[in-house]
This record gives sequence, C-alpha cells and structure tokens, in this order.
Amino acid sequence: MTRTPWTTLPTDDETDRWDAVAEETGRLLATDALARDRANAEPAAELKLLKDSGLANLLIPRQFGGHGGHWSTGLRAVRILARHDASIAQILSYHYCNQASIVFFGDPSRWEHWFSASARGSWLWGDAVNPVDPDLVLTPDGPGYRLNGRKRFATGASTGDVTLVMAAEGEAGARVLASVVEHDRDGVEFAGDWDALGQRLSASGSVDFHDVAIRPEDVLGEVGDEPYSTLVTPGVQLGFANLYLGIAEGALARARELTLQRRGAWLLGTAEHYSRDPFVQRVFGELLSRTAAVEALADRWNTRFDRVIARGADVTAADRTEAEIGIAKLKVVATETALDVAHRVFEVTGSSSARSDVGLDLYWRNVRTHSLHDPVDYKKLEVGANYLTGDVQPITLYT
Amino acid sequence: MTRTPWTTLPTDDETDRWDAVAEETGRLLATDALARDRANAEPAAELKLLKDSGLANLLIPRQFGGHGGHWSTGLRAVRILARHDASIAQILSYHYCNQASIVFFGDPSRWEHWFSASARGSWLWGDAVNPVDPDLVLTPDGPGYRLNGRKRFATGASTGDVTLVMAAEGEAGARVLASVVEHDRDGVEFAGDWDALGQRLSASGSVDFHDVAIRPEDVLGEVGDEPYSTLVTPGVQLGFANLYLGIAEGALARARELTLQRRGAWLLGTAEHYSRDPFVQRVFGELLSRTAAVEALADRWNTRFDRVIARGADVTAADRTEAEIGIAKLKVVATETALDVAHRVFEVTGSSSARSDVGLDLYWRNVRTHSLHDPVDYKKLEVGANYLTGDVQPITLYT
Amino acid sequence: MTRTPWTTLPTDDETDRWDAVAEETGRLLATDALARDRANAEPAAELKLLKDSGLANLLIPRQFGGHGGHWSTGLRAVRILARHDASIAQILSYHYCNQASIVFFGDPSRWEHWFSASARGSWLWGDAVNPVDPDLVLTPDGPGYRLNGRKRFATGASTGDVTLVMAAEGEAGARVLASVVEHDRDGVEFAGDWDALGQRLSASGSVDFHDVAIRPEDVLGEVGDEPYSTLVTPGVQLGFANLYLGIAEGALARARELTLQRRGAWLLGTAEHYSRDPFVQRVFGELLSRTAAVEALADRWNTRFDRVIARGADVTAADRTEAEIGIAKLKVVATETALDVAHRVFEVTGSSSARSDVGLDLYWRNVRTHSLHDPVDYKKLEVGANYLTGDVQPITLYT
Amino acid sequence: MTRTPWTTLPTDDETDRWDAVAEETGRLLATDALARDRANAEPAAELKLLKDSGLANLLIPRQFGGHGGHWSTGLRAVRILARHDASIAQILSYHYCNQASIVFFGDPSRWEHWFSASARGSWLWGDAVNPVDPDLVLTPDGPGYRLNGRKRFATGASTGDVTLVMAAEGEAGARVLASVVEHDRDGVEFAGDWDALGQRLSASGSVDFHDVAIRPEDVLGEVGDEPYSTLVTPGVQLGFANLYLGIAEGALARARELTLQRRGAWLLGTAEHYSRDPFVQRVFGELLSRTAAVEALADRWNTRFDRVIARGADVTAADRTEAEIGIAKLKVVATETALDVAHRVFEVTGSSSARSDVGLDLYWRNVRTHSLHDPVDYKKLEVGANYLTGDVQPITLYT
Repeated sequence: MTRTPWTTLPTDDETDRWDAVAEETGRLLATDALARDRANAEPAAELKLLKDSGLANLLIPRQFGGHGGHWSTGLRAVRILARHDASIAQILSYHYCNQASIVFFGDPSRWEHWFSASARGSWLWGDAVNPVDPDLVLTPDGPGYRLNGRKRFATGASTGDVTLVMAAEGEAGARVLASVVEHDRDGVEFAGDWDALGQRLSASGSVDFHDVAIRPEDVLGEVGDEPYSTLVTPGVQLGFANLYLGIAEGALARARELTLQRRGAWLLGTAEHYSRDPFVQRVFGELLSRTAAVEALADRWNTRFDRVIARGADVTAADRTEAEIGIAKLKVVATETALDVAHRVFEVTGSSSARSDVGLDLYWRNVRTHSLHDPVDYKKLEVGANYLTGDVQPITLYT
Repeated sequence: MTRTPWTTLPTDDETDRWDAVAEETGRLLATDALARDRANAEPAAELKLLKDSGLANLLIPRQFGGHGGHWSTGLRAVRILARHDASIAQILSYHYCNQASIVFFGDPSRWEHWFSASARGSWLWGDAVNPVDPDLVLTPDGPGYRLNGRKRFATGASTGDVTLVMAAEGEAGARVLASVVEHDRDGVEFAGDWDALGQRLSASGSVDFHDVAIRPEDVLGEVGDEPYSTLVTPGVQLGFANLYLGIAEGALARARELTLQRRGAWLLGTAEHYSRDPFVQRVFGELLSRTAAVEALADRWNTRFDRVIARGADVTAADRTEAEIGIAKLKVVATETALDVAHRVFEVTGSSSARSDVGLDLYWRNVRTHSLHDPVDYKKLEVGANYLTGDVQPITLYT
Repeated sequence: MTRTPWTTLPTDDETDRWDAVAEETGRLLATDALARDRANAEPAAELKLLKDSGLANLLIPRQFGGHGGHWSTGLRAVRILARHDASIAQILSYHYCNQASIVFFGDPSRWEHWFSASARGSWLWGDAVNPVDPDLVLTPDGPGYRLNGRKRFATGASTGDVTLVMAAEGEAGARVLASVVEHDRDGVEFAGDWDALGQRLSASGSVDFHDVAIRPEDVLGEVGDEPYSTLVTPGVQLGFANLYLGIAEGALARARELTLQRRGAWLLGTAEHYSRDPFVQRVFGELLSRTAAVEALADRWNTRFDRVIARGADVTAADRTEAEIGIAKLKVVATETALDVAHRVFEVTGSSSARSDVGLDLYWRNVRTHSLHDPVDYKKLEVGANYLTGDVQPITLYT
Repeated sequence: MTRTPWTTLPTDDETDRWDAVAEETGRLLATDALARDRANAEPAAELKLLKDSGLANLLIPRQFGGHGGHWSTGLRAVRILARHDASIAQILSYHYCNQASIVFFGDPSRWEHWFSASARGSWLWGDAVNPVDPDLVLTPDGPGYRLNGRKRFATGASTGDVTLVMAAEGEAGARVLASVVEHDRDGVEFAGDWDALGQRLSASGSVDFHDVAIRPEDVLGEVGDEPYSTLVTPGVQLGFANLYLGIAEGALARARELTLQRRGAWLLGTAEHYSRDPFVQRVFGELLSRTAAVEALADRWNTRFDRVIARGADVTAADRTEAEIGIAKLKVVATETALDVAHRVFEVTGSSSARSDVGLDLYWRNVRTHSLHDPVDYKKLEVGANYLTGDVQPITLYT
C-alpha cells in the first residue's frame, strides 16, 4: 500500500476552476501590491484572501475536509499569484510544502487529526527550518521537550496559524524531528526583522524559541532521507520555479502596458510609436520566447510531480533523483529567465518607467531577493554532475 | 466536414515505436556521419534507410498505404535523427512538409492518387520553393505549362524521387501553383553546387528548370493564404526547432563522451578528473537546463500542431496565428540554445577535442549553417509585435 | 586661431591631484549615501562639497579664476564620485557640459564675463534642455524675450546656481538659442517632482518657465550644428560612460566587502569560505575583467576628448564623427557592463545582502535609471551603420 | 643593474613603421589564407615572409644585429597578422616568447652569442614546453645530456630554425632546464600529426626526442620562479589576447564585406538593403563596441608590458602579480569577445555566407581551437581570487 493521500492528476475542470480562483485572488492583490510593498506591514488581509478563496485548503484531501486538489494545481496558483504579488505567492508556496509535512514526516494514523484541524481553521503553515542557521534544539523534558534556538528566514511563521519546526533532538542528537507549533504558544517570539529589498510581504523574519514546550502530540515525526519524504525539497524548488515564472510573466505584462502608454517614438527610428519600434518588438519577442520555454518545462514538472507524489512509498531513489535533477534544470532556467526579464524590461519601457510611482522595479526586487535562497551555480553543478558521472548530491533541504 | 487526413494525437505506443525506429536509424547514420560529412557526396544509402525504416511513409494515411502516423511522431523522428546526422534529419523534415502539399494545396479527390503513389515508391519529396530567389515561371503551353527558372537551396531535390515546385503562372501571374515533378523529367538539371559549411549531406544544391513540361495532372493546386494550407510554414519552422534541438542534444552527448575520455584534471583545480571539475559540471548543467526547456516547448508544440492540423478547414486565422507565434517562440529559443550549446561544448572537452578526427565541430557547423535560413531577430520581432499590438506579419513562407 | 580655452592634456600631477580630491569628496559622500538616497531630499550639503573641493571650478581656465583643468580630469572625477554617490556624480558631469556652453555657443568676447562669474560664485550649472519634451519658446519682447514652457529631467536645475536653457526663438523659429538663467529669476518654478527608482539625489525634476524675462546678455548664442560646438553631445555621453563605469566599480567594491563578511561557505562546495569558492571567484573575475576593458576604453576616450576639444574651430566633421562613434562604442559597453555588474553582484553576496539596510541595490537602481536616458540599441545602430556604410546619424543631443 | 636588453617604450615612428610592415605581410598572407588552411601543409613560404619582413628579428637588440624593437610593437604585429592569418600570427607570437628565453633563462654573458646567431639566420623559434604532457628528461651524459620524451602542441618546432626545450634534469630532478636545439639535430623527430579544426598552419604537431645530445652550450639556464623570468607567461597570454583580438577584427572586416555584397533585404524589414537593416546595424554595433573595449585594454597592457619588461631584475613579485592579473583580465575579455564575434557574424552575413568557398568559418575555427589552450573559467578564478583575498595562483606556464 502506498503512503500518499494524493492521486495522480487533476481533471481539466479542476485546473480551470482553481486557475480562475487564483486569477481572481491575484487581481485583488494587484490593486494595491505596490502600496503594500512600500508599507512593509505584515500581510493580514492578504492571507485572509488565501483562506477565503479556498487556496489554503486546496491540497487537503476531501475526506479530511479539504478540496482534494493536486500539487500541480497548487503550483499553478503560486505562479498566477506571483504575476500580481510574489510575496503572497511565496507564502502560499511554502504553506503547501510545510503542510505536506503531515504526510512526509507523520504517521498515516495522524493524518486525519492534522489535516482536519488544518482544514477547519484554514490554517496557513509557516516554517522554521532554514538549514543555514544552527539547529534548533529539543531538550527532553518529561514526556516531551523544551525547544530553543533561532531561525532566520522563517517565511510565513509570524503570520501563519502554525509553524513547522525542524529541530535536533538533544544536544548530540542525530535525529531531527518535525513538529508543529501554533502561532501564540508561550516562548515563541517573532523578531519582526524582515525588511528586505524584495518579497517584502512574505513574512520572512526571524523566529526565536525560548523554552517552548513541545508535547509528544506536537511531533509529526523524524526527518529522514528515504525517497518519498525527501521529495519535499524538489517540491519546494518546483514552487520557486513557478514563483519566478509568475514574476517574469507579470513583468512582461506590466512592461507591455507601459510601452503602449509611452508617448511617440525614438527620434532615430522610423516607427510611429515605440510599440512598433523593431528594437522594442525584438526585446519583447526574445523575453517572451524564453519565458514560454520555462513555462513549458514548469508545466511538465508540475504534472510529473503529481505523478511521483501519487506513488507514495513506491517512490524509489531513482525516481527521486529524476525529479530532483529535472526540477533543478527548471530552477536554473526559471531563475535566469526571470532575473533577465525583470532586469531588462526597462529597456523597452523608457525613462518615465523609472518613476517611483510606476514601481516596475518590484518584479526585479522580488526575484533578485528570492533567487538568493540558494546559488544557481550549484544547481548547475548538480545537473551537470549527474549527467556526467551519475553523481547525486547528498540529500539536503537544497537538493 | 474538415479537410484533413490526419487525426488528433498518437498513442503512446505509436510514439514509442517510431522513436525506436528513428533511434535505430540514427544509430546507423552515426557510425560514419563524420566521414560522410567530409566526403560531401550526395546521400543515397542514407535515404534508403529512411525508406526502409518506414519513416518516409510515416505520415501517409493507412488507407493510402502509409503508416498513418502523426506530425508529432514525425517531428520526434527528425529530432532523434538530428542527434546523429542533422543533414538527413533535415531532408526528412522537409520531406514531410513537401509531401503534405498533397493536402495543403491539392483537391481531396486527388489525395488517393498522390499518397498512394508516394507510399508505393516510398518517395522522398524534395522542393524548389525558396522564396528569396526570383519566382520560377510557368508559361501556358497547350493544356499544361513550360517551367523555367532556377531555385537555390532546393533541399532534397537532387536526391528525392519527386520535387515540389512553386512557380508563378505566367509572367504577370498573381497565382502561384504547386506542382510535382519527378526527379528525371526532361529539362530538370541539378547544379551539384551544394558545398557548405554544414548540413553538407542535405542535398541542398540549386535546381534549374529548362522548358520542363508540366502537365495538368502534375499541378497540385494554387498556393493561397487561407489558414489551413498556410500552416505549412509553422510546420516547417517546427521542423527546424526539432532539428536544432536534436543537434543540441547530440552535441551534449558527444561532449559528455569526450569529457569522460579526457586525461587528468586542470592543474589549478582540486578535482581528480575533469568530469568532476565544478566548472565543467557547471557548464554542462547550464546547457542541459536550457536544452530541457527547449525540449519541453518543442514537445508542447509538436502536440499542439497535431491538434490544429487535425482540424482541417475548421482552422481559423486566429488558430493559425496562435500556432505561428507559439512556434516562432520555440524557433527563437531552439536556435539560440542550439547555437550556444554547439559553440560552447568545446569549453569542457578541452584542447584535444579540436583534433580534426574528433569532429566535434560538426554540430556547430550544422546549426550555424541551417540557422541562417531566416533571421532570428525577425522571429523575435514577429513575437513581440503580436504581443504588443496584436500585429500579425504577412503570411509568407517564413512566417 | 582656434576657438577653445582648453589645452591638450593634463600632467600626471594634475591627474593625481584631482583624483585625490575626487576620492576624498567621494569618501565623504559615501558615509551616508544610502540614508540620503532614502530621504530623497534635494542635495545641498552635497553640492557644497563640489564647490568647496574645487571640482565645480575645475574646467574654468586659470585666467578666469578657475583651476585650468582638463576634461579628462573632470571625467575621472565623475567616475570616482560615481563609485560612492552616482547622483552627485551625475550633477557634476552635467555641470561641466552645461558650463561649457559658454564656449560652445558663446562668443569668445563673452567668455571672461561668464567664466569669471561662474568661478567667483563656484556656480553649479543645471540645465533645461531635454530634447524629448516640446521646445521651450522665446517670444520676442523689447530687446529680449519672454521664456515659456516646461522641461522634465532638468538635472541640477533646482539646486544649481544657474540653469542652461535651450529654447526656440519664436513660434516658427528655426533658431534655438542657449541662455543662462539664475536659479531665482521670476517665473522660474521647480516642480519638485523627481522621485525615481535611482539617481534620486540628482535633482532631475521638471522646471517650468512662466513669462521669464530673458535679457540680451542672458543669451549665450545659437545652438548650431558645426562640428566643434556639437562636441557637447559626445561629451555628455562620455560623462555617462564614466558615470556607469564608476557605478560598476563601486558595486564590485561593495560586493567584495559583503562577500568577505559572509559566514561560512555553501554546503555543497569544498571551500572553507565563500571568498574562496571557485564559483564566487569566477563571477568576480568575469565582472572585473569586463569592467577593466570598459575602463581602458574610457581612459582612451577621456584623453582623446581632451585632444579634440583642444583643437577648437579646427575640428572637422570627420573628427566629430570619429569622436561620436568612438564614444558611442564606449557608451554601449559601459552601459551593458555596469547594468550586468550591478544586477549580478548579488549572486556572490548571498541572501543577507538583500536586507534593506545593506542597500546593495543602490548601484542597480542608479544605473538602471540613468541608462534609460537614451536606448542603447540605437547607439549600437549608430556604430554599426557608420562601420557598414559610413552613415552618420543626424546631429542631435543624443548623437 | 637591471638584467634586460629591452628599453621602455617605442616611438610613434617605430610603432607606425612596424604596423605597416605587419599590415603588408598580412595582406600577402590574406590572398590565399583560406586555400592554405584547406591544404594543411607546413607553412614555409609564410615563414619566409616573417623573415624577409624583419618581423622575426624585431625584438633582437640592435647591438646584436636585430631591429631593437619593443614587445608592444611585436604584439601589435601579432594582432595585425591575426586579422589575416591567425596561424602565422600564432607562430610569430610564440617565436617572440621562445626567443626571449635567451634573456629570461640565459646568463647575460651569453646574450650576444644567441641573439647574434638568431639575428644572422633570422631564426624562428619553436618550442617543446607544453606543461600538460609529462616532462621531457635530460639524462647526464659526459659534460652534457641525452634528451628523451615527447611533447604535443609544439608550436613552430617542425618549421622553426631552433626549438626551445624545457626538460627535467635527471629522473628525480627538481631542476628544469631550458635548452636550444636546432631543427635537424639527430634524434629529433616531428610527428607531423597536426590536423586540427583551426590554427591549421601553426605547425603545432608533436615532437619526439630520442637520445638527442644536449651539449653544455645548448643549455640556456634553469627555469626558475623569480619574478622577472616568469614574466614569460603573462607575455605568452598577452600574445594570445592580441591574437584573439586580431581574429575578431578580421572577422568583422570580412563580415562587413559580405554584408555589403548581399542582395536585397529581408522581406519583413523596411530597409532597402541588409547593410541598412537596423537589426544588422545593431549586431555590428554591439560586436564592434565590445571589440573596441578589448582593443583599448590590449593596448594598455602591451604598453605596460614594455614598461615592466624594461625593469629587468628590479621587477618585484608584486609587479609580476599586477601584470599577471591585468593580463588575465584582458585574456578573459579577448577570449569571450573573439569567440562571440566569430560565432555571431554569421547572423548578419546570411545564408550564402555558409558556402564553403566563402570560408567565414575560418575565424571561428581559429579562435575556437586556440582558446582551448587553457580554460577561461580558471582565468576568471585567478582574477577573482586575487581581488577578494589577494590570493595569487602558483606560478606556472599558465599563470
């Protein structure tokens, strides 16, 4: 029996329906995305949209009160939202991966408990797992533990209903456990220190744990390295790729609007308007073409991810590697394309598009910031090494 | 009733079976591809492989004696062959488009005649249609015509069984007719002047027509500009994209072999062998990632082309534009990626890979040569113009 | 007799001395460049530094009370300042070109008047000349004129002592006159509307002229198209190139600091610290190499510009074209290199470098904004057209 | 007293005179460069041109019978020849470095002997020093040695008058000695195995030494690592940069000719001829701009190399590092620019330029082949490492 609550592929109808939900949510977010970016407040109304729209519960199986959606559907929602507000898209993307810890690390006997609770509260799941910082530590205390330590870049934690925590058991503990902590538990403190170039509404500040009580029932399970549960990292990276793709698409759409609004044409050209200047058309054509290729590869891996995730415990190490490498390729082109698009659209939108109230830099700031998550050169190394010698990098939260 | 002999999509089994046929044919071509490139002889044994394998008759409907295959299947065969011998892949690609003139320009009442004759003889179709040269001219003569003029770049004509000819009716004739001329008809002369940097076995020399008799039954029909028949150009461009993709994949595979064969490692690096040098891995990873994105977009458009071609006369101008623009995007990324791959693989294969007997330059020569067919900057313009203002370029054999 | 107050080349001592002045001024500006960027106030203390340091009067001949410096020296100062504060560097760069209107458009008999006044007051010269907006209009009124109209992007006008104004004489006037208007003259209004992505302290808002009285003695002369005076545009573009080069150099220096401050190394690499990661070293090496090439070309044209400017009325159309095209080449590589450097340094500085208080985005915002001044594709066209056919673009304030 | 026969800088007159000599020699080579490339014969008439023109003796001091020229002058000659025939330019470039071993490794008391002999015979110096192959071995034998081993890539050896040999003294010998062996000495065998993609006339086949007698007077001296003599590697790399620059310039000039010869214009453009197509102009402008930047940096380092070489034994390790790093930057941009130019010029020359008899691929084949000498990524590493931490790579024949 396979250990998975997710079935193979969405129907076209599911896809269309949730695309429309995401599009409507994105449209609402778009109306004041720039103003909210400037204000740099914690997103509250934004997250309410994710709950009210149903997107928060999309991946929860129907029998547990969710919408029984598919990963590919959720990833499309991330992409669509990212066209309009990449911060909120990031929160949603991380939310899906964090919530999936119920399956990846938890015993199937507990799925109903966690999924049902999450569905009932339309919980958004933040995290405290960033592997660059030192481990959080769980000190045994009675039947449970005391949790201590700090994690930076805890996306969604400060605004989420619960936080997924990965922490080492004991000082010398080889085991890392995944636990769930609700937002207001005693000893949990949010530093409110997220003030970055981009992704400003992604609630990615630090979180501190001071002797936080972790009860046995808060623990989902151990973080291991068998193929199925470690699909979480390709899943996370796939979310990034859809995020970046959405940013690129959003930047192109905004650049089109701005180009059409420009006055006149360049004095040395022969076109009557910038939108018919061959150099302008050429830049759009180049960026659109590259974006279309990324989109096709993203769609391919969104679908393949549905297939592999539906295999549950049958997933082999080879399956896992295939997904890892395929998604790494996607990550590489999504990163480089989105960066290039967001950087270069200014070439065609002209000097007035640098006005602060235009905010065309938002796309660049968002993708420039988030793409620092892990170095793209090491993704290339991962892909090339595998092709040349079959080498597979050690399984981590980056590979 | 739709005017098309092709149905929507291949089964997985059809795809797999013909992939295997193409792979086996490619494998045979690979054994002496470099030697044949150097010899620059007309391909004869090579084309026999296309006939014997069944690839020549792949797209001919079963009821007319063919294999009833799909365009996507044929395009995959082009891609697979191109990994091993891009010249022969080009001939096959053009063959499919030329042969399809039976449908695009011919009356359905004549399909049986042409398809059956083509199937029986496993004909390969060359062409004399390049639009850059002045029009060939059909001078009325009795019930038929006399054909005169020269076309360069007449791929497959000198080695094909028949040649598709596009020629203007009369000196002042606005009508252009598509006709079929067998290889040995009186007055047809092949200049034998194809000696190019790449695609050397593509039989792309000039053809001269000296008072060649064209009988009424040789004429397929008029070359018009309604949506369905003009899908031939997106079809041609889609063939190019698959061709370039195959070249890129072939170059990467060959570069991998050469890298694994290198001795030692670079003296300033820390790896024990070039295949584990991070810079080498990085270059492979980058090129593989971009190639994977092109592949996904090619697969998408191969399939969509099956869908649109199966709609026959129901195809609207909007459908045609959608295919044209989508395939133009693919053409842009396929061209730029394949050029870059073939140019840059030398970075990782080292100085010994420049030996003449290695022949790694073959990939570059092939894609560099064929990609001059039409300027990629104008493909970008076509894409960008459509996005910005909805402009559609005039329908030509390049758009 | 040549019509120029500038002599051929600086001594090494002059260069060294003013480099040190610029470096010291830059150092002072650097201490709070980011804070001032955020505050977006008009630069006042900053401009006082330009006056106190002597940079404002650098190009004024000694006999008129200035420092008798050379253009190459001034351009180096622009570059050096741009490493630390590109807005103030822009003001200085434009100041030199605006002030040089005394020579380019004015009769030599008036040089003493203008230069001496400028030297005495350490005037900074702003401008109202942007050719994209409709012409300002001078309506004859008694012995002088009334000036009306609006110019956007009037760099340095709102904070300068005087503004260079180019305006058409009369409604149908073919003549364009260059005049000088002091900051507080009646009817001059500064819109205070400069709030841009970058170059935020460059005082580049709009200026409105409402029936401003222009006396005969305010008029420098006619803006013509003979070779010498139209060197102003290559001079302006040369200033841009030095500005962009300085931004690139500043970004690299800042990225180096940030890289050295990073903690640890990437988990998949073998280096002990990011600063010894081969991928990090590679990116720095690539960007430094390209920047060094731009620097060499900038130094070459700074010097050649000294030579051509020293020839005065002897400058031929061919000399002017040579400078125009040579500087256009420099502009192309300076633009593309600086954009690429400022965009890509984040690759090596890591996720913490996206914190708002780091401000590494300042370099990107500055060069991204200013490089929209005129499209780099048209600079390439200008260069290519001249190489191919000898074509020279019409003389404008962009060519 | 400094240990150098070279003085600081050439006069303008020297530069002009030898530029003209190189240009004339290049012009002669250009007439049949393509035919000779195809024939792949050893260059004999070509090298006679180098002797007759005086270029072979250019760097030999006047007191020893040479022309007393400067390195910068010789490097310019390499660049100019490379525009027309990069193989012969390579031989000349290596010749200068090999001949300079007289100074770098030899005792000043022997300079007269070697330089005078070289001048009298207008010797061309080949080499057998490639560090990638195992060391040649000198076995003590009487007062001298027996030399054994094989070196590949022995540029100029098979056609030169003498060969510079670097070989280890004894099996366990830490010392490497530089010796000179005349072309016909017993036991020297040239494998005649040079058949490469490009640089086909560079006489770069293997050389075998079978018990070749090395007399004490054949030994120049020990190959050490003090700063002055190890300037040879920056010198070699500087030669490469000038070689690549010349190739880029030659490719652009040829592409211009071909573009002007094209018929008509692209059917979707508005220009009357390709040479006025904005996309064509744009590509030329971009490539010309980048080439101009490389040229400026090459000129800068040619001159600086004259200065450092003139300091003789006063050269410090810091001077050596400065030259190494500066020239490495130049090498990076020269390599990447020349590769890009030679690869991309086809974009503007059109499909007819792929004809074999046009030979536009020669530029690409030459730079693609020679640029494999040592990986450009490691040059970037060298530059970046030095900038970040001051690290200097170990001194080798590549650094």
